[in-house]
Amino acid sequence: MKIICPKGSLLYGVNTVSKAVPTRTTMAVLECILIDASEGVIKLTANDTELGIETRIEGTIEQPGVIALDARVFSDIVRKLPENDITIETGETFKTRISCEKTEINIVGKSGEDFSPLPKLQQSNEIVISQFTFKEVIRQTIFSIADNDNTKIMTGECFEIKNDQLRVISLDGHRISVRKVKLKGTYPDVKVIVPGKTLSEVSKILPGEADRDVNIYLERNHIMFQFDTTTVVSRLIEGEFFKIDTMLVSEYDTKLSIKKKDLLDCIDRASLLVKEGDKKPIVMKIEDEKMNLKMISFIGSMNEEIDIRKEGKDIEIAFNPKFCMDALRVIDDEDITMYMRNAKSPCFIRDEADTYIYLILPVNFNSGSR
Amino acid sequence: MKIICPKGSLLYGVNTVSKAVPTRTTMAVLECILIDASEGVIKLTANDTELGIETRIEGTIEQPGVIALDARVFSDIVRKLPENDITIETGETFKTRISCEKTEINIVGKSGEDFSPLPKLQQSNEIVISQFTFKEVIRQTIFSIADNDNTKIMTGECFEIKNDQLRVISLDGHRISVRKVKLKGTYPDVKVIVPGKTLSEVSKILPGEADRDVNIYLERNHIMFQFDTTTVVSRLIEGEFFKIDTMLVSEYDTKLSIKKKDLLDCIDRASLLVKEGDKKPIVMKIEDEKMNLKMISFIGSMNEEIDIRKEGKDIEIAFNPKFCMDALRVIDDEDITMYMRNAKSPCFIRDEADTYIYLILPVNFNSGSR
Repeated sequence: MKIICPKGSLLYGVNTVSKAVPTRTTMAVLECILIDASEGVIKLTANDTELGIETRIEGTIEQPGVIALDARVFSDIVRKLPENDITIETGETFKTRISCEKTEINIVGKSGEDFSPLPKLQQSNEIVISQFTFKEVIRQTIFSIADNDNTKIMTGECFEIKNDQLRVISLDGHRISVRKVKLKGTYPDVKVIVPGKTLSEVSKILPGEADRDVNIYLERNHIMFQFDTTTVVSRLIEGEFFKIDTMLVSEYDTKLSIKKKDLLDCIDRASLLVKEGDKKPIVMKIEDEKMNLKMISFIGSMNEEIDIRKEGKDIEIAFNPKFCMDALRVIDDEDITMYMRNAKSPCFIRDEADTYIYLILPVNFNSGSR
Repeated sequence: MKIICPKGSLLYGVNTVSKAVPTRTTMAVLECILIDASEGVIKLTANDTELGIETRIEGTIEQPGVIALDARVFSDIVRKLPENDITIETGETFKTRISCEKTEINIVGKSGEDFSPLPKLQQSNEIVISQFTFKEVIRQTIFSIADNDNTKIMTGECFEIKNDQLRVISLDGHRISVRKVKLKGTYPDVKVIVPGKTLSEVSKILPGEADRDVNIYLERNHIMFQFDTTTVVSRLIEGEFFKIDTMLVSEYDTKLSIKKKDLLDCIDRASLLVKEGDKKPIVMKIEDEKMNLKMISFIGSMNEEIDIRKEGKDIEIAFNPKFCMDALRVIDDEDITMYMRNAKSPCFIRDEADTYIYLILPVNFNSGSR
């Protein structure tokens, strides 16, 4: 094989597929990036068998062929070479010569034959969303997946298509995040669970342009994302996702509007008084026109008042400050609306159109410390 | 005590003195910042008994007094408060109320009486250097101090005043860095060893303005730095520094000029092939008009040529790539001059005026692998 690629293009490709290189594995070939120039185009691929990424890059093929190179070594080399055309040439026993201007580096690759290719999908159940919207949807839900494997299903996000609408749901037992996106066109109903890791890697490599799309294919065992010259294929998580619709019925006795930034800044300050591992709640006392926030910890106490608009009953309710901040940080609206029923029932933060719903369970607070 | 300070001013002060707060200590009061508003000005102080920093900040004193507050908690609070005036007010049993706009935070401080003040110095042996120059001098020498305490003296830098010139020297057994600064005025000869940690902290808080000075006082056991509204006092390292002048006599058989960036980029690429812990040298083969650089490791090999201008003999010599890069990174000149004698004698990188001298010992290289 002999190919010549502009450094920028090669670096983009290497950075993209590297997201599917496992950090630790017993199969050395998985730590490699496959360079495939056997079929008239130059393709880079990495595949950890759960998640695979393939991308096509610019370049000239002088001699077709295939080689697998250690991902870390190869990407380090590409990054540090001068900004110019890079030539990659393989010889006997997978010896690989990487050269650029007056630099010449020799490393030993591996046979491309041991490399597992991406699974071939039928490309059914296609949906098309703008890259920007899809990246936002991931950002606005990914934070509330569970971070351990005790309940495997909770480490993924549910993608549900129903009534020509995509609903993305994540939950961890203390909170639920829901984002809805209206789709263009007509779609059959389908429901799958996508690993959180896949979504966070896709989100990293997705340029996020508003005028370019990502095509998503949902199949029985796999999901595929296609954008620009890149294809990502991931296994799905098996199982039945939680039925959340009964939990989302939000009858409320208190409805309030508040400036998002005021509330976020205030809870952020309060959480200064909480050391890691401590479980001190932020207590909100909601009256007409104002919310009083209080935090008492071993370090000290905080007291603050924020202006609000309220309908319905006064209420006193407490939350894990982190859960409030996580949701507030991803909401783009300046003014938000919160719905509450009583100190034991979930609180909802949602917009009129239910584009987003954040459900947060309250926590007990010691009324003696008020 | 009751004081009112603009947030910006308080935050600057807290960030400045925090550099002298020890990360781990058995004396809780050392983890505090002392706020002293007893003498008509507001001073913040932190002091870990080796290194002490004091800075004067803007603000209004409504009631004089002194309080010591936990440095981490206090600086977190100041950072997160709104951009407005912050009021700090102490009550009984060191209760402290920090308020800003509608936020009110209560923490418990400590008596200022347990706090050790900065040592009082006589302010003798004063030298004056521009902040910019002094910050540069630290950056250009600090990297070659020893990073462990086996030889205490090597963890500091020698400050030597002689012939109205300041010479700063650091060394770690494999290399020596020397920076000279011409002083304005006449000075008695003096020589002290300043802890590396002190210099790196000073360098962090020194704004580095070219048109503002830092005043430095060298005494028997202490060094003091004064700039803007800040005073830093540090203990010195006891002992006699190494006599380096005999080592710096640089007779040479090969003198070469090279573009610094070319050499640095090339060695940087070569070091990709060296995993941590590996001790592979970069081998330089110097001939007329060109330097050939070679690196052979378990990962692969690199070969590169750089244009040079050379006087004297051809030579082949090898170095620890890190030591070369460390020195090259801090030199501001575009073209550098290197002096060598043979493959076992130190290599010198220095400018005509000896403003800087970097001595690097070569390493053995296996001639079989050439």
